[in-house]
Amino acid sequence: MGADKGKKQKVVEAEEEKNGTAQHIDGELVLSIEKLQEIQDELEKINEEASEKVLEVEQKYNEVRKPVYDKRNNVIKSIPDFWLTAFMSHPALSELLTEEDQKIFKYLNNLEVEDCKDVKSGYSITFHFKPNPYFEDTKLTKTFAFLEEGTTKITATSIKWKEGMGISNGSAEEKKGNKRPHVEESFFSWFNDYPQNGDIEEIQDEVAEIIKDDLWPNPLTYFNNEVDEEEFEIDDDEEKDTDVSEDDDDEQDDED
Amino acid sequence: MGADKGKKQKVVEAEEEKNGTAQHIDGELVLSIEKLQEIQDELEKINEEASEKVLEVEQKYNEVRKPVYDKRNNVIKSIPDFWLTAFMSHPALSELLTEEDQKIFKYLNNLEVEDCKDVKSGYSITFHFKPNPYFEDTKLTKTFAFLEEGTTKITATSIKWKEGMGISNGSAEEKKGNKRPHVEESFFSWFNDYPQNGDIEEIQDEVAEIIKDDLWPNPLTYFNNEVDEEEFEIDDDEEKDTDVSEDDDDEQDDED
Repeated sequence: MGADKGKKQKVVEAEEEKNGTAQHIDGELVLSIEKLQEIQDELEKINEEASEKVLEVEQKYNEVRKPVYDKRNNVIKSIPDFWLTAFMSHPALSELLTEEDQKIFKYLNNLEVEDCKDVKSGYSITFHFKPNPYFEDTKLTKTFAFLEEGTTKITATSIKWKEGMGISNGSAEEKKGNKRPHVEESFFSWFNDYPQNGDIEEIQDEVAEIIKDDLWPNPLTYFNNEVDEEEFEIDDDEEKDTDVSEDDDDEQDDED
Repeated sequence: MGADKGKKQKVVEAEEEKNGTAQHIDGELVLSIEKLQEIQDELEKINEEASEKVLEVEQKYNEVRKPVYDKRNNVIKSIPDFWLTAFMSHPALSELLTEEDQKIFKYLNNLEVEDCKDVKSGYSITFHFKPNPYFEDTKLTKTFAFLEEGTTKITATSIKWKEGMGISNGSAEEKKGNKRPHVEESFFSWFNDYPQNGDIEEIQDEVAEIIKDDLWPNPLTYFNNEVDEEEFEIDDDEEKDTDVSEDDDDEQDDED
């Protein structure tokens, strides 16, 4: 047994000797890679800290912006059809409003995009309406909550349409000859347009993104585009990154 | 004359009276829009200040990261073919290396991505090579400078290929049966691949972006993907947002 053990030992040693160089190299390599992993972990910690600091800055400036946005909303309320005009002057958003939607938008007197307090956990878009013949709600909200696991939870107001109104057939009730046949679905279907069964990864709500990142930061640019073409001559050195020219045959016609 | 003037005056006044209400409304509207413009200007100032503060944070953390990246580079140097393996294990970058490129990459012992000090004005990607039979350079750099006007100025090392080497015909000299026919152009043509006549708006250098934003932050993820399949069992809880499975038939074959 003792001899047997000795023999085994020898074989192992022989094999070790044979593979010695290779094993030595592999061992070094493994150590290097472990070291590399530690450094990557260190970098990740730094990145997380950096993200947090950036977030703090963003949160702070959200607080600074809030009262300015409120002030802006008050001024906007004094301008008739401001949001309707801004939407209809936006090359992408204008495509989303049916003629009936435009009539409903005449009651829209306030729009609000709000980040969650901690910024990174989501935002909401709220449309405030004056009392109107179309629905009972005075506030329609769509909320995007970014959850820890990297998914997004969407919730939205379920619109309480008044008797005979609604978008079930793609547009609000009183349907006359439709001049904009390419708009088939009401804008308001956007409030239903999200997976109702749970959270989703990689949500891409283009409408929400345009409203949040393009319209909301400077709706006046869009409002002015329209106004320029019609009756006002407003100083507009700055605008003009947008091209509204493409499809001007469906101008807002609100003389009803 | 006096009477004439009086008459004119009267006409003007009458017209003013006639249009009074409309003009009053227009005047109010113009005032509101001017006010709105002021508020937008105020918002823009806040946004600029916020961007600057964010930039400051990024700059600070770039300083913090720098020595860690240097330490990482030192460890990487001790791992044979680290960058070659990482490139060849990257689903997109691996597609860019011809067989000849892979031979050249065996001399690549250091890669560096560096932001400009002020972060927002650009970055450079530098490949450090050991002395090699292919070119005189030990350092190949491509630099992206973001200029004030919103354009990007690109500059890159003009590679001094050694006698008989070079990429003029799409690959380095010694061309044996090409196992990867879909790679037609040498990776090194990337150093020539930019508009030589001036600055460009909206530059989209996908290779640069992948190296900077994907490979550089964590090359070990890619290195490990390859290593896992072959001989090492490294702890890899963290990786796995990448999918390298698609196209594994052009594995790195470097036993020459």
